[in-house]
Amino acid sequence: MDFIIPHLRTKTLVLASQSPRRQELVKALGLPVVVRTREVNEHYPSTLPVAEVATFLAELKAEPLLSDLGEDEILLTGDTTVVLDDQVLNKPADRAEAEWMLRQLSGRSHEVITGVCMVYRSERTVFSDRAEVRISALDERLIESYLDSGSPFDKAGAYGAQDDFGKLAIESVYGSFYTVMGFPIHLIYKAMKAL
Amino acid sequence: MDFIIPHLRTKTLVLASQSPRRQELVKALGLPVVVRTREVNEHYPSTLPVAEVATFLAELKAEPLLSDLGEDEILLTGDTTVVLDDQVLNKPADRAEAEWMLRQLSGRSHEVITGVCMVYRSERTVFSDRAEVRISALDERLIESYLDSGSPFDKAGAYGAQDDFGKLAIESVYGSFYTVMGFPIHLIYKAMKAL
Repeated sequence: MDFIIPHLRTKTLVLASQSPRRQELVKALGLPVVVRTREVNEHYPSTLPVAEVATFLAELKAEPLLSDLGEDEILLTGDTTVVLDDQVLNKPADRAEAEWMLRQLSGRSHEVITGVCMVYRSERTVFSDRAEVRISALDERLIESYLDSGSPFDKAGAYGAQDDFGKLAIESVYGSFYTVMGFPIHLIYKAMKAL
Repeated sequence: MDFIIPHLRTKTLVLASQSPRRQELVKALGLPVVVRTREVNEHYPSTLPVAEVATFLAELKAEPLLSDLGEDEILLTGDTTVVLDDQVLNKPADRAEAEWMLRQLSGRSHEVITGVCMVYRSERTVFSDRAEVRISALDERLIESYLDSGSPFDKAGAYGAQDDFGKLAIESVYGSFYTVMGFPIHLIYKAMKAL
């Protein structure tokens, strides 16, 4: 699927994300991709509305890369937040917190918001997409097994929609599955066509 | 994620499907899997309500395997139908039909129904799950590029939700993404726990 965005044929996508899910998703755009990340302290003001945390953090992740950005490079950053009862669930600090998060999510719906920041020359495009995810009433054995796998620890809300856990536990998504995975890739495609 | 269904620990899942998506999805159940397929003429009565085609075909696919099924084997078959305007879109016969289907799906919502048939000893469990998928207004270049990739031809409705095309074209899913991919794996997990 090359050249689906022909006017960007000579550009390179600079992805500032270590996430293998995001690295996989952007391949669909058909542009050459380089991964370039910088350490960022992912703090946000406690007064920030939860709905704005994802875009705030996506822009924060873009900051340290702006000065080095080439003329033919498009910078792309993203942040995914899991929101339950108007609280953001970040990456769990340890097993106990991961377990607590999974129990909180059990048998209910929560919201996933992914913020995106795209920078090309002087043009900056920032947007977010949200999806509602319903998790079934979780079985003890499934929780234990998932914690044992180690997979929850690098994920906001302690789970990945693409993990075996996600396959077994997600009852439904209302919105884009790929937004839940880490990038609303259909909207990034649209934004790139408009560049 | 082994032994999440402990009472089935000594069983083998017999998957009657050539679909790489289904083969991938059932791994989440943590049981040993063997793929065993037989040729089936996938015809259904023209008077059958569209909502029942998927379960009818799932049961049809199970038939030729029933006589050979071992005592410790659980047979699993599935069929995914794409429904638009109360019509089933099957696998496209050629490029022209695939193109026609993609243009039909463009800028609208359609329904995906996956039927499942599970057989264990004398117990047969049949069910289906449906999801609504919204496709954005498709760009000519995306359609051409996807047809060129050859991927539409073995897929009901001429697209795969997990393909690059699906990533760029699907605006939203209302229901289970995995049902759209080929198996409502969360419901299969539930049905297996109940065996």
